[in-house]
Amino acid sequence: MDNIKNQFTKRSITPITPPKNHSSSSANPLLTPQEKKLIAKLQHHRKKNTRLSSSHPRKNHNHPLSKNLKIIALGGFEEVGKNCVAIEYEHDMILIDLGFQFPEKDMLGVDYVLPDLTYVKKNIRKLRGIVISHGHLDHTGGLPYLLPQLKHVPVFATQLTCDLIKKRLEEFPDVTASLKPIRPEQDKIRLGQFSIEFFRVNHNIPDSASVVIHTPEGTIVYSGDFKIDFTPAHDDSADLQRIAAIGSQKVLALLSESTNASEPGLTISEREIGENLNIAFSRCHGRIIIATFSLLLSRIQQIINSAHKLGRKVTFLGRSMLQNFEIATKLKYYKIPRGILISPKEINKYPDDQIVIIATGSQGQESSAVGRMALGEHRFVKLRKGDTVILSSSPIPGNEKSIYTMIDNLIRQGAKVIDDKSMDIHASGHGSITDLKLLITLLKPKYLIPDHGSLHMRAAHAQIGQDLGMPEENTIMLDNGQIAEFHRGQLVSTKGKVPSGLVFVDGLGVGDVGNIVIRDRQQLAGDGIIVIIAQIKKENSPSDESNIDIISRGFVYMKSADSLMKELKKKALNIVNHRGENGQLDLTNIRNHLRDDIGSFVFDRTQRRPMIIPVTIEI
Amino acid sequence: MDNIKNQFTKRSITPITPPKNHSSSSANPLLTPQEKKLIAKLQHHRKKNTRLSSSHPRKNHNHPLSKNLKIIALGGFEEVGKNCVAIEYEHDMILIDLGFQFPEKDMLGVDYVLPDLTYVKKNIRKLRGIVISHGHLDHTGGLPYLLPQLKHVPVFATQLTCDLIKKRLEEFPDVTASLKPIRPEQDKIRLGQFSIEFFRVNHNIPDSASVVIHTPEGTIVYSGDFKIDFTPAHDDSADLQRIAAIGSQKVLALLSESTNASEPGLTISEREIGENLNIAFSRCHGRIIIATFSLLLSRIQQIINSAHKLGRKVTFLGRSMLQNFEIATKLKYYKIPRGILISPKEINKYPDDQIVIIATGSQGQESSAVGRMALGEHRFVKLRKGDTVILSSSPIPGNEKSIYTMIDNLIRQGAKVIDDKSMDIHASGHGSITDLKLLITLLKPKYLIPDHGSLHMRAAHAQIGQDLGMPEENTIMLDNGQIAEFHRGQLVSTKGKVPSGLVFVDGLGVGDVGNIVIRDRQQLAGDGIIVIIAQIKKENSPSDESNIDIISRGFVYMKSADSLMKELKKKALNIVNHRGENGQLDLTNIRNHLRDDIGSFVFDRTQRRPMIIPVTIEI
Repeated sequence: MDNIKNQFTKRSITPITPPKNHSSSSANPLLTPQEKKLIAKLQHHRKKNTRLSSSHPRKNHNHPLSKNLKIIALGGFEEVGKNCVAIEYEHDMILIDLGFQFPEKDMLGVDYVLPDLTYVKKNIRKLRGIVISHGHLDHTGGLPYLLPQLKHVPVFATQLTCDLIKKRLEEFPDVTASLKPIRPEQDKIRLGQFSIEFFRVNHNIPDSASVVIHTPEGTIVYSGDFKIDFTPAHDDSADLQRIAAIGSQKVLALLSESTNASEPGLTISEREIGENLNIAFSRCHGRIIIATFSLLLSRIQQIINSAHKLGRKVTFLGRSMLQNFEIATKLKYYKIPRGILISPKEINKYPDDQIVIIATGSQGQESSAVGRMALGEHRFVKLRKGDTVILSSSPIPGNEKSIYTMIDNLIRQGAKVIDDKSMDIHASGHGSITDLKLLITLLKPKYLIPDHGSLHMRAAHAQIGQDLGMPEENTIMLDNGQIAEFHRGQLVSTKGKVPSGLVFVDGLGVGDVGNIVIRDRQQLAGDGIIVIIAQIKKENSPSDESNIDIISRGFVYMKSADSLMKELKKKALNIVNHRGENGQLDLTNIRNHLRDDIGSFVFDRTQRRPMIIPVTIEI
Repeated sequence: MDNIKNQFTKRSITPITPPKNHSSSSANPLLTPQEKKLIAKLQHHRKKNTRLSSSHPRKNHNHPLSKNLKIIALGGFEEVGKNCVAIEYEHDMILIDLGFQFPEKDMLGVDYVLPDLTYVKKNIRKLRGIVISHGHLDHTGGLPYLLPQLKHVPVFATQLTCDLIKKRLEEFPDVTASLKPIRPEQDKIRLGQFSIEFFRVNHNIPDSASVVIHTPEGTIVYSGDFKIDFTPAHDDSADLQRIAAIGSQKVLALLSESTNASEPGLTISEREIGENLNIAFSRCHGRIIIATFSLLLSRIQQIINSAHKLGRKVTFLGRSMLQNFEIATKLKYYKIPRGILISPKEINKYPDDQIVIIATGSQGQESSAVGRMALGEHRFVKLRKGDTVILSSSPIPGNEKSIYTMIDNLIRQGAKVIDDKSMDIHASGHGSITDLKLLITLLKPKYLIPDHGSLHMRAAHAQIGQDLGMPEENTIMLDNGQIAEFHRGQLVSTKGKVPSGLVFVDGLGVGDVGNIVIRDRQQLAGDGIIVIIAQIKKENSPSDESNIDIISRGFVYMKSADSLMKELKKKALNIVNHRGENGQLDLTNIRNHLRDDIGSFVFDRTQRRPMIIPVTIEI
């Protein structure tokens, strides 16, 4: 019954290969801790891959079509980001969301990480379309890079989401998207054997939707990012009636997001944030500079409202803030009181207590508007005593240090700083335990598949399902690449696997930077590089010091390492002039010795392991 | 009166120099965002330095002795870590604490960061001794590296602190320390004109002391890290009577730690943690593996007590855990029930519900005991369903990602994980707002100098002082390097400055890695390196492709970049064979063109900026 599983065991675009000659890295004293760490990771991945490819040998394609409905976890099941799920039945497949992930700190030089779509590309003839739940980059960011490989199939999303995707694609002139706006309350679309509708949910970007996929084997609901806000600021509340109605028609499986599955209670309401912003604003006597996410449109509307109440003018600073303000204005999203908007150049025409500046920089980015103010480098705004900077946001994990550095610099410039630790001036867009319970209770799915989160978040979410009375085996934990197969309303297998490597975007390259390149970067980052260029005479006469050049970067401040460099040169010369017993010139052997002997020597003297590159030139 | 200030404007060991040719980095389109960020930092530092050196030209040393008491902020005033303060009066100087800091994520390859002691070394004849408040590395870690430069002056600390320093110094055979154990309740020491006593405080390492320095100009109290625990688990409570008595004798200035100055209330008591551990343990039916800080001796005692209550055996895993257990045992710190300790090899001899393993790994370190268990690589412990891993600790900022990766892997191995988010099983060692208020109220200092923390933490602490009625000008905010001078019970200046750069430890090198090396490492980390080796014929005959070698590392996976490399070679050959109008061979010019033209070409094609190193060899 699961004879189709694992037919594709081909490796991902960026093959994860273990380094040569290291069967057991943890015992190898020649490796740095960094290298050991990387190798351990690689082995972990390899184990997963090996197990699969050995137990499920590649089969040819001419098998009878499986009658199983497949939910394929492609991304967002072992991380926060690069969300992507495929749903497949017979000749038809759709993708839901196609996000990217920001790189982990050891993925040096990588811009973004994409989900591995090897399986989808192999089955491209089945792909009927891509459905996007909302406009955040962890749900849309993969489109510019992957649409061309997916034959530009149509993309279905709400109006704002379509507009945001379109805006981003302007930077990719070669990519055209066939964008199909849908209205969550009214539209039903048909893609192959799938009939798809939507319902409205709350999130910290408007026009967020959950996706309902009716299949011949049952109905699947994909929550996307959501929270239940009974008193949203500017949107309508999530459509609980409609959700309940869908739940009353039997839901086979709910894929639901796990970001805040460990947070107790119901996520704080956006309107409460608005009230707190009013309080915060009323305490300020100078200029107010407020940073938030540029796509948090309802927050920005609330800020405008608070400003209006106090008779303050409003201006916007920062590229993405201006860009998204423009998009939202076109969609008539904002209600802007007449005469409240001013241009950044007019800031100094008004008294300090009549100014509100809405700016980018809530994550401590140095190139953002508030980031530049913190460094005293902003064109229009020089901070001074009396200014208040409000960060109406929370740190995205990993950004804490940059944010606190920025706060320190803001204080140094004389500003007072209010962040979400000092006051409830930010609400998460993700549902907490009660929100998640509410969705499960309204939909009454037979199976719960926690998605959008790494293992511990999804495990907490599975526990919530079990706390609501679901049997443990009905809360399905999938890894990236894993397939859940259903037949006649029953889960029949989770053993199938498709490739699930990491695809790195670096500059213009998609997938051309793999683990070998990253490992080199890690070594270069840790201890730099030494290049030894040796000119070796063909005739059997010895080289002298003028034939040896040593160049290093990132290793040691060269002027203070004069004697070390002299010793290195001497050592290299010895190696070069030591010919084998038969007097034959063996360049490979010389290069090996240069690398290994100089490497050990440098380590003994400095406890550092720069990359050593020997170059031999016969003259 | 402050004629002594800024006499030393010499740069720190690691000079912060701006990169060449970039007067305004933010506008320069040739720079990567990473480079711009670094340059902005450098310029920020430079501005600070320039201002000082220009307004206070270097003076000679033969000035009349200042009668001012000086408190010199050497480290821990712009960061968490490398705590160090100098107190100077006439011919006498002492240091309090000498810690190191763990590197920020952009300090690639750096092991530790030390405070800049240029000023102390210049005045080494004044230095009477070093007083250490407690045994954590942010207070002691600089000793092995800096004691030799400080003529091995005596070091005063409590017994446990001395023992921990001694243990660490075993790894530095060339460093000898003259360690002088002191008893907080009884000993008073005299160093020059300073008379010094101590009082006991609570912290998450035993034998922590605050330092009271009686000077001819008044009494200074240095809190060190502390909290007020009315019900500590195994230590005595902080000695409030003694603190009050010191406060009744007029305190000129209080240097007090700011780590938790934004946390409301009183820090949770250690005994409450013990009770929660009892509850957590009683819910476990399999093995308990518990990770905590190896120096949190009172926590470890509570874990032993909880294990004893349930009839479980206890064993220890992890190098630092074993090492510090040994030290604490020698000091008779622990009360170990007879027969409770077993060796790691005996774990499998007992039923699962009779085992408690106390292990390293609370910060997600992959090489720690729990870290290896998470990867399935631990020699003695293979995790399985039924095991519970308890992290009785909180993440040190920056470690969050590693910890959650470890938790994910622990869950994957089948274990249940309890961390301090799910239960109150860890108490910070640092005082919250109420603790800080209590110390200020008991000591009634005229001046408050918040230390141990970056600006926003110290600003919050200054606000606490002001909330207690201190005038704003009596809450003194110092940067690293800044001097507060007092005369006749009054603050007379905060304008003086001493060098305050960052001194990097990398392997065996102290100070030989500066910002130039770090900048190179950042470039190498981001996009790798391309080395172009061109053999150029002296006689005016053109080179051919066999004369050009191109080597790259960390740039792109070479096998997939074949055509790019061919183009590079061709381009390099063109440059090499293009001689000036007069036909002269200008190697410098060729190298410049190789670097710049190949650099632009590579950027156009890949949007990456690898470091380009041209090497020319005349043949």
